Amino acid sequence: MADYTLHEDPRSGNCYKIKLTAALVGVPLALRQYDIMAGETRTAAFLEQVNPNGRIPVLQVDDRFLPESNAACWYLAEGSALVPETRFERADMLRWMFFEQYSHEPNIATLRFWLHFVGEDKLTEQQDAQIMAKRIAGCEALALMDAHLATRDWFVGDSVTLADIALYAYTHVAGDGGFKLDEYPAIRAWLARVEALPGYIAMA
Amino acid sequence: MADYTLHEDPRSGNCYKIKLTAALVGVPLALRQYDIMAGETRTAAFLEQVNPNGRIPVLQVDDRFLPESNAACWYLAEGSALVPETRFERADMLRWMFFEQYSHEPNIATLRFWLHFVGEDKLTEQQDAQIMAKRIAGCEALALMDAHLATRDWFVGDSVTLADIALYAYTHVAGDGGFKLDEYPAIRAWLARVEALPGYIAMA
Repeated sequence: MADYTLHEDPRSGNCYKIKLTAALVGVPLALRQYDIMAGETRTAAFLEQVNPNGRIPVLQVDDRFLPESNAACWYLAEGSALVPETRFERADMLRWMFFEQYSHEPNIATLRFWLHFVGEDKLTEQQDAQIMAKRIAGCEALALMDAHLATRDWFVGDSVTLADIALYAYTHVAGDGGFKLDEYPAIRAWLARVEALPGYIAMA
Repeated sequence: MADYTLHEDPRSGNCYKIKLTAALVGVPLALRQYDIMAGETRTAAFLEQVNPNGRIPVLQVDDRFLPESNAACWYLAEGSALVPETRFERADMLRWMFFEQYSHEPNIATLRFWLHFVGEDKLTEQQDAQIMAKRIAGCEALALMDAHLATRDWFVGDSVTLADIALYAYTHVAGDGGFKLDEYPAIRAWLARVEALPGYIAMA
């Protein structure tokens, strides 16, 4: 088996996704930690060697580097029960993973970062002006997830897939961004199902 | 083979990606067109039957619906030469497709939509305040792509993959959003390579 090193910041849900995937499929990951608040992923060395996009997580597979959290989850889980066996369901799993990166993370994770880690009093005027739009779009994403989960246990098919792992990461800490999970009962029941999975690990 | 219908707006690069993928792999697509400017993807019928997220494209496969452009491309291309055979390269292709939806589309496609279709004089104050940040982030995405393509013909491996198709869609019309493609020679050479592919079709 290849040697895996996750370049990460433990506060990041995008990094946690990969650790949770690795735990569920039983793959050991070495960890290399960076402080994103201190700009440690924007140094010349990081940009040159790890990720020219200046972002974590990056999954290192021997001497190759794989940015983008959901691509790293896919790499680790391909061939496992976390990726559906049928063609439509595999694509439908990717559908929810793209939804997560486009409609969920930029709203729910960004508000968590701004309000919980940066602090509302330290936001720029431009960030401040975006809070309401991100609040509305984040609530729309949660409402869509809640409606989907009202009649099913998992996002795709009859068992847990990477779609659930990807969406779990920032949903279960959405309260940090001021979202009220009490308003989404189907999401709360689904969070409990994820947390009951054999091999589940909590976020740091 | 299944019956495929693409629910689309021909002005959308996200819809074009799927049509280009289908053309390259030789799969016929029926088209059902909507006017996103007139709110035709936000009607109750659309939300209930096609996509609760109120967005196009959606690929209909018989009676099932698959939202998210890159998931639809994956569905159509799985098993073809557009998806690499090795595990790392498949994940690396997805890496660029997630990059496209997170770092490229929200900047480059959004500025094209705002400036080319909506019109700068009709933007809200909040949209107007985001133009500069999206301009900077869009240029960063293009610079990263240009540097990557400076030493290679395609984003992943030695031949065209869905990573190229996904990134081509909004890059080749980035000028509509005020981006200057002349500044990115490796991108321009790569655009020409995509346009020379057997089966290539132009955007409507």
